[in-house]
Amino acid sequence: MIGYIALGIGLLSIVIALIFAMYVKKKDQGEGLMVEIAGYIRHGAMTFLNAEYKYLSIYIVVVAILLYIGSLFSKGISAYTWIAFVFGAILSALAGNVGMRIATLANVRTAKAVETDTSSGLKVAFSSGAVMGLTVVGLGLAGVSALYIIFKDIVNTVELSNILFGFGFGASSIALFARVGGGIYTKAADVGADLVGKIEAGIPEDDPRNPAVIADNVGDNVGDTAGMGADLFESYVDSIIATIAIGVMFALVSSIEVLLPLLIAAIGIISSLIGISVVVALRNNDPSKAMNMGVITSAVIMMVFAGIAIYYLSPTYHIFNTTVPWYYIFIALISGLFAGIVIGFATEYYTSDKYKPTQEIAKASTTGAATNLITGMAVGMLSTVIPIITVSVAILVAYYLAGLYGIALAAVGMLSTLGMTLSMDTYGPVADNAAGIAEMAHLGKEVRERAEGLDAIGNTTAAIGKGFAIGSAALTALALFATFTNSVGNVTMDISDPAVTVGIFIGALMPFLFSALALKAVGVAAEDMVNEVRRQFKEIKGILEGKAKPDYNKCIEISTQAAIKKMMLPTLLAIIVPIVVGVTPGLGAKAVGGVLAGSIASGFLLAIYMANAGGAWDNAKKYIEKGEFGGKGGDAHKAAVVGDTVGDPLKDTAGPSLNILIKLMSIVSLIFASFFLR
Amino acid sequence: MIGYIALGIGLLSIVIALIFAMYVKKKDQGEGLMVEIAGYIRHGAMTFLNAEYKYLSIYIVVVAILLYIGSLFSKGISAYTWIAFVFGAILSALAGNVGMRIATLANVRTAKAVETDTSSGLKVAFSSGAVMGLTVVGLGLAGVSALYIIFKDIVNTVELSNILFGFGFGASSIALFARVGGGIYTKAADVGADLVGKIEAGIPEDDPRNPAVIADNVGDNVGDTAGMGADLFESYVDSIIATIAIGVMFALVSSIEVLLPLLIAAIGIISSLIGISVVVALRNNDPSKAMNMGVITSAVIMMVFAGIAIYYLSPTYHIFNTTVPWYYIFIALISGLFAGIVIGFATEYYTSDKYKPTQEIAKASTTGAATNLITGMAVGMLSTVIPIITVSVAILVAYYLAGLYGIALAAVGMLSTLGMTLSMDTYGPVADNAAGIAEMAHLGKEVRERAEGLDAIGNTTAAIGKGFAIGSAALTALALFATFTNSVGNVTMDISDPAVTVGIFIGALMPFLFSALALKAVGVAAEDMVNEVRRQFKEIKGILEGKAKPDYNKCIEISTQAAIKKMMLPTLLAIIVPIVVGVTPGLGAKAVGGVLAGSIASGFLLAIYMANAGGAWDNAKKYIEKGEFGGKGGDAHKAAVVGDTVGDPLKDTAGPSLNILIKLMSIVSLIFASFFLR
Repeated sequence: MIGYIALGIGLLSIVIALIFAMYVKKKDQGEGLMVEIAGYIRHGAMTFLNAEYKYLSIYIVVVAILLYIGSLFSKGISAYTWIAFVFGAILSALAGNVGMRIATLANVRTAKAVETDTSSGLKVAFSSGAVMGLTVVGLGLAGVSALYIIFKDIVNTVELSNILFGFGFGASSIALFARVGGGIYTKAADVGADLVGKIEAGIPEDDPRNPAVIADNVGDNVGDTAGMGADLFESYVDSIIATIAIGVMFALVSSIEVLLPLLIAAIGIISSLIGISVVVALRNNDPSKAMNMGVITSAVIMMVFAGIAIYYLSPTYHIFNTTVPWYYIFIALISGLFAGIVIGFATEYYTSDKYKPTQEIAKASTTGAATNLITGMAVGMLSTVIPIITVSVAILVAYYLAGLYGIALAAVGMLSTLGMTLSMDTYGPVADNAAGIAEMAHLGKEVRERAEGLDAIGNTTAAIGKGFAIGSAALTALALFATFTNSVGNVTMDISDPAVTVGIFIGALMPFLFSALALKAVGVAAEDMVNEVRRQFKEIKGILEGKAKPDYNKCIEISTQAAIKKMMLPTLLAIIVPIVVGVTPGLGAKAVGGVLAGSIASGFLLAIYMANAGGAWDNAKKYIEKGEFGGKGGDAHKAAVVGDTVGDPLKDTAGPSLNILIKLMSIVSLIFASFFLR
Repeated sequence: MIGYIALGIGLLSIVIALIFAMYVKKKDQGEGLMVEIAGYIRHGAMTFLNAEYKYLSIYIVVVAILLYIGSLFSKGISAYTWIAFVFGAILSALAGNVGMRIATLANVRTAKAVETDTSSGLKVAFSSGAVMGLTVVGLGLAGVSALYIIFKDIVNTVELSNILFGFGFGASSIALFARVGGGIYTKAADVGADLVGKIEAGIPEDDPRNPAVIADNVGDNVGDTAGMGADLFESYVDSIIATIAIGVMFALVSSIEVLLPLLIAAIGIISSLIGISVVVALRNNDPSKAMNMGVITSAVIMMVFAGIAIYYLSPTYHIFNTTVPWYYIFIALISGLFAGIVIGFATEYYTSDKYKPTQEIAKASTTGAATNLITGMAVGMLSTVIPIITVSVAILVAYYLAGLYGIALAAVGMLSTLGMTLSMDTYGPVADNAAGIAEMAHLGKEVRERAEGLDAIGNTTAAIGKGFAIGSAALTALALFATFTNSVGNVTMDISDPAVTVGIFIGALMPFLFSALALKAVGVAAEDMVNEVRRQFKEIKGILEGKAKPDYNKCIEISTQAAIKKMMLPTLLAIIVPIVVGVTPGLGAKAVGGVLAGSIASGFLLAIYMANAGGAWDNAKKYIEKGEFGGKGGDAHKAAVVGDTVGDPLKDTAGPSLNILIKLMSIVSLIFASFFLR
């Protein structure tokens, strides 16, 4: 019953997403230059997606075959896992594709709508965000529910878990490609465009004379929309899967303990729909207030309904061998929700120019780029304290109330209102693009200012969204880790055993290695981009006078090629390292446990450090641009631009990729766990 | 018997150090300006030491009283531990003091000696390095041996271990003050001097018109000599102590298994003495070749004699409940020695301008400071791979051959020839200071070039020394960690227990928090320094024309005060966090185990990243100064200077402090272990 309700609400979410999509599509897209530019961006985005799909299909086919072969050799891998893997990959790709399509339709329509007024623009941009948010949670919940309904009676519980892990593995794989590839794409274009355009040629940002400008705008969609969506799609389904998998270890497959995560997710979708309506209804107010109200409304409704549901379904719950009252379950669930909120606030504190940390970075810029950078690094490192403590408290609370099941449930709680929060996150890049189009198409000053106003709010929501994505990735990875330690059963993973310690070392190393590869990829691709832009400025006559058109496609191609080539090695490492550690004699399952624990701790820390340092550098620069410390063009500003440029690949490429890394390594370990136990 | 041999050889080492010291002191210190400048530096160094000692004495008295009170409440803390603590603190301070005194005597004498020729300069500088090297190992071995001889028959083995940990705790505490305080001191002065002097006033490095220049030169002694010496003193004694402590858990207090680390250390001192003689004998050759020959000779001799000793003492060894052949012990021992060598080479590869990574950073400087920084970060992160894998392999080999005892023994092996390697490390800052004095005192061009030649070699040895210090800190911390897990006996520290996971999180967080505090301290102090230098340039008439003398003391005071104030919080955190975690209900000993494992993994990674990124940025700048990519003064050079300045506090303040952090947290946990077991 609950399974079918969840499936139904998942499908409902998709239908409502479609209605929002039709609404957006129907809007006026404007005329002339703005349509032309939007066309370039859409074309560029699709070029990337098509190129990516080519490689993805090969990857999916190869891994599916390997999973099928694996199922012939080990009972630990189900004969259906490969199907679930393909299914998960397709749904994840679909969610990303829908989000990208709608975002590239909405950008120009938002720019057109702000011609009327700000609230019209907000409605278009936020509606396209809602398409993404509702598609992600709809496909996620419907997908998991469908697998549950189909397989629960025809396979045993261990096999059911393995099938679900296959679904998560598919989602993870696509997410890694989208996050790493998208991250490389967007920053190669951004850094390249800035270095030559802004610094060498002295033309402003989003100037159509810059050959890399379209690639830069495409990048916002590829990285911030598709990448973020795939990342959170993965967290969302993985948290549900982990809870089900732990549930079936101690309860019947159709017991309330197993079905609870599906129910909570369904309640979360309803709450998100209400939250989205609140934003639409309040669109004439201050946009950031409207969105905050939406987030708060959906969180409160979710808490109330989840509490009622948990209480009415059963006054007590059976977790492994103990019985706990219903409110233990409820508190475990909302501990995750609270952790998400605290991390969001902490992110804002450390990255907004309203607070001391970012202002200190701006001040440090007055003594040069070096002090700007040192201070930014210190702020980024310091900003790890609150999130780490918060997640630690949340998992301890959840664990002492409801065991490892509680930890998984906390992750579900944190992600339950994703439909709403992701709508808000996706709004950001759409507004960013709209502002870019308004600039490039020379819309009137007033229009551009309104578009920039929407964009500025988008920057704050994007920063909070990043913090939320990292926090939820960490909690989801911990849930998967708990599932792993539970599923390998009797293996002791005592850290006094050097195999476990070495596992922790290798795991902690992975995020460093991964970040190094990502940063290097951006560095090399940005250099290629710089050379290409310089070449066009030199060889295409009249380009700087606006008389000749730059070759946008060449720059798009450079970013696309760099992204696709450079995402292979990190992806393979994430998959191969846990497997190699697991099958190495003397290491094995216990060392894999160490790898996961080490990678989550180090990945979580590094991701927050990078995201917040990057965000703070960005906003310190903007703070100076508002007129502080000499304002735009002054020495402090020049120093702050360096910090901002350094922070770009940290916050948009390396940092977010780590979210996927820690989840992917966990899910790979879960799928292949049976091979580590010999 | 072996105890007395070790004591004797420790004392012999001190005597030979004294002879070297007298040799250095007898050398001609030159005349005029160079004596004056050297006087300022020596005075500044002593000002810092005296100020530091004031705070240190308070700290030592307080902690000694707490340890005494602790011993009244818990049988886990010996009534003698506080005495050993004071003893360890005094010996460590003494080693640092001797090293500083001789280094500040030798700098000017080296400058004078290069007037004759390079090899004379090398002899003076290296002799002063030998004073430091031999004092550290002599005091370390004599101290541990003396405690062993005194207490082995009057207390039980658990108490003996606790007393030895007290000694290590004393050494750790001083090391933290020296490393963190010294690191803040040196970089506040360096960054401050560079920002105003080089960039604003346009006067060269080491120009006596710069008020911060003396503080900068003092900093080289405070940070690189005293800090490095205290760091390695701690690693050295801790590795011996850990091996003894594990030994007495399964063997008699006077068995060969317990005495082996003392014997190995004694053999290491003899080998180091031979290595030092080789360097002195070969001083007329290429200096870097001479030092390499010294290192290789001492390592080979150590291996041969250690092998013979292990074989002749007993054909088999009893480790816990198993018996292993002698060569198992031998291989475990030299696995550490090899790991040290591999890490040294890897450090050189990633930081020397002879290889691709540093050259790539130099190339990236041509597109600006931002790409220089991004590439440097990528190089630093990538450089963690080899050290982590190397240490992992070493501890796995050591463990499978000789259990946790083997891991501790590997640390002893790595540090056995410290007398030689530390002589080489300390040579660096002396040569650096000599070059500074040659510049400031306007010695002839030829003299300055020779001094700079010695300095350049010092940079390479310093980089390798840093890698070695980090590697040995990690291995020593692992040895202490093994001792901890062993000493809390029956406590399971399974990573599937969230208390352990949370411990790992908190442990992994500590190096980030610690680095943030260190970087912030440098940033704030450097700003104060900048303002003071600007003030002097403005208010003291004729200062830039060289007619009026700057107020050096004011700058020295700023660095001193910043160092002393800002080292308190990190130190307290390192001590308090493991204790708080240990006594918190629901966390306890198992969570402390997690804290240690997490801090070692994350601290090791972060330390290597910071040291190597910093070293590579430094050398990329020097590579450009040699004429590549536009040479000195070009745009690439300006970009590279930013990278170098950012790297300074990473490689000389935050990074090295982490070595101490991970050891101090481990030893604190060991001492208070009995409180965590309720």
